[in-house]
Amino acid sequence: MSLAHHQRVTRIAEAAKFDSVFLADALALIGEVRRRSGASRLEPLTLLAALAASTERIGLIATASTTYGHPFDVARRFAGLDHISGGRAGWNIVTSAGDDLARNYGFDEQAAHEDRYRGAEEFVEVVTRLWDSWDDDAVVVDKEGGVFIEDTRVHPIDHRGDRFAVAGPLDVPRSPQGHPVRVQAGSSPRGRDFAARHAEAIFTAQLTLPGAQEFYGDIRERVASHGRDPDRVKVLPGLVPIVGETEGEALAVHERLERHASMTSGLSMLSFVFGVDMSGLDLDAPLPRAIEEHQAQGHQSRSALLVDFAREHGLTVRELIGRTSGGRGHRVIIGDPVAIADSMQEWFEEDAADGFNLMPPTLPGSLEAFVDLVVPELQRRGIFRLDYEGRTLRDHYGLERPARA
Amino acid sequence: MSLAHHQRVTRIAEAAKFDSVFLADALALIGEVRRRSGASRLEPLTLLAALAASTERIGLIATASTTYGHPFDVARRFAGLDHISGGRAGWNIVTSAGDDLARNYGFDEQAAHEDRYRGAEEFVEVVTRLWDSWDDDAVVVDKEGGVFIEDTRVHPIDHRGDRFAVAGPLDVPRSPQGHPVRVQAGSSPRGRDFAARHAEAIFTAQLTLPGAQEFYGDIRERVASHGRDPDRVKVLPGLVPIVGETEGEALAVHERLERHASMTSGLSMLSFVFGVDMSGLDLDAPLPRAIEEHQAQGHQSRSALLVDFAREHGLTVRELIGRTSGGRGHRVIIGDPVAIADSMQEWFEEDAADGFNLMPPTLPGSLEAFVDLVVPELQRRGIFRLDYEGRTLRDHYGLERPARA
Repeated sequence: MSLAHHQRVTRIAEAAKFDSVFLADALALIGEVRRRSGASRLEPLTLLAALAASTERIGLIATASTTYGHPFDVARRFAGLDHISGGRAGWNIVTSAGDDLARNYGFDEQAAHEDRYRGAEEFVEVVTRLWDSWDDDAVVVDKEGGVFIEDTRVHPIDHRGDRFAVAGPLDVPRSPQGHPVRVQAGSSPRGRDFAARHAEAIFTAQLTLPGAQEFYGDIRERVASHGRDPDRVKVLPGLVPIVGETEGEALAVHERLERHASMTSGLSMLSFVFGVDMSGLDLDAPLPRAIEEHQAQGHQSRSALLVDFAREHGLTVRELIGRTSGGRGHRVIIGDPVAIADSMQEWFEEDAADGFNLMPPTLPGSLEAFVDLVVPELQRRGIFRLDYEGRTLRDHYGLERPARA
Repeated sequence: MSLAHHQRVTRIAEAAKFDSVFLADALALIGEVRRRSGASRLEPLTLLAALAASTERIGLIATASTTYGHPFDVARRFAGLDHISGGRAGWNIVTSAGDDLARNYGFDEQAAHEDRYRGAEEFVEVVTRLWDSWDDDAVVVDKEGGVFIEDTRVHPIDHRGDRFAVAGPLDVPRSPQGHPVRVQAGSSPRGRDFAARHAEAIFTAQLTLPGAQEFYGDIRERVASHGRDPDRVKVLPGLVPIVGETEGEALAVHERLERHASMTSGLSMLSFVFGVDMSGLDLDAPLPRAIEEHQAQGHQSRSALLVDFAREHGLTVRELIGRTSGGRGHRVIIGDPVAIADSMQEWFEEDAADGFNLMPPTLPGSLEAFVDLVVPELQRRGIFRLDYEGRTLRDHYGLERPARA
């Protein structure tokens, strides 16, 4: 809960020239997962605004929901963060799976997957039109004439759709990036299609190189099929780096982390991902067939990924939790700096990733280890920047500033 | 739109030991008022979070709407700001008058005054219960046992009311102040009653000492009638200080401001306050009787205040705009430091005010003049602090931290 902790972590990432920090969100305190992990959350946009004032160059990506938020709020808050940070804001667009969340927003259970995505389409359309409701030259600041904003350059949007009626215009000028960068993480077929139409960066959970390559190729095809340039959409798999100066040291770190890992917490993460109660599961047996075949309403692609990975490697539930970042489905690499850089380079060069969403298991410790040991190795290989070249998140990702629609 | 400007202004206020900064909000770009004045707004909570990271002691009060927001969002965002700032957050509770706003949130026009206030009652109840959903000692951080939060100390709220169904608990621990300070500014009979039940600080527009005394007395009576201690509710009238080292200098400043004041802007502020189009009004005649008698649906008490003031002093429309802060209804004092301190002391000692909501006509210029010239005079008289004694907004206002309900 302390700002000082978040400032410290973010400044380490900025000193290492990372693209951005990324804050997830949950909109609920979800059972065992959060109670044990301590991952209660400060609301991401508020926290990132504080971090904007504490940093200069690093991008700031916040999660905000299209199911439980309102597009006028989301549009102005991200435009505000983009103004405050000088063009470093990104919006991780989520449709917010889970009944716990729904019950904080007036519903007994979540809406169906397809309904949430249909709602998200309209939501993103309204937000984008609000971001474009001011011409870039609308603010004229004519002191003599007493005119701050040139009226004819600010446009109502008069949106009337299935879910929303929003007159506009937005109440702030067009922001430094034009549009804060749109990030998305849905990996179901519906989620991929949504991402292909709207996202400029995609977070994804991938456990194997072939799986990641399949995803990478599929996304680029879908992006192209919507008439967009695949090079303008960055695919960023999650990565949990466990690094030591030697392999032995890395294994020792891993062992220590495992000793502290909570199986209760892992089971409750699996329950969350699959949408069924797994708390009674035998840890030393494989996943029961009934669970393998359960079609999760919440996180469809994530549960399929875990089932495939467990089958492929013949894992018990305990092993599955240990090798997928506590059941979250993210890839864990354990090794010395060269081994970790090798694997990252392979994924980067073999069409599996444009970059990575790093998830250090401890903060700031594991982040510092990665920054001290792996970043110089990546820089030596010429596959990671030595310094920032631009000032905005779009600059870091190599994305153009969009013209007004 | 620049963070640097807001940081500069806030740091001046903090160096002068002010209680807080206060950010209004509009949720819409309202016609001429904003287009000409340039007061397009960064979303207040986002901006205040950035300012929290840029300051140490000053309170941070943001406006958020009970008509167009959701209580789970408002509760977590203010709790977040309170955590980030170490206990300096305040919530200015507004019901958001105006059709322009309504049209950004799915409505053709605003709801009736009484409906907005009824909705606000439930909204505030839900937010308060969410703030109280964690015991103060719920976070135990038992590393050996693997328990971060003690389950039995976090409580769902299971609210089911007319407008909202919210299960809870909140997703963050109870914040440093327990409850961020509740601020309110409604001055209609309904607004006063609401404030008497919920507010800990009240902003108000008062043009005359007797008017302010009537308001001050009435609020204290209403507060007491709800079983609350009137000394725990601070009444803070708006004040536009125009100060010079001599009276002549102050008058020269005022004249210069008047030369730049826009009558179009003033008329459009009056139109906003009264809820009728006044753009065609004769500036050199009194307010037409039809407008005097118009019952504003939006800002009832503010329009009545302006009508009374114009009648009492026999003002033309132009004079009314000039003497009420551009039609906003706030008191303007023009004078040397002693004259301004005299008037503030009189209001403070004669039961008209516990403090003031300063509205410098230019920023940072008029604020700097007030801080340099008037603050030392108030300190010399022993009616303003020489330094902060506490660290939270509650400390600055002399309000206790509430126990969990």
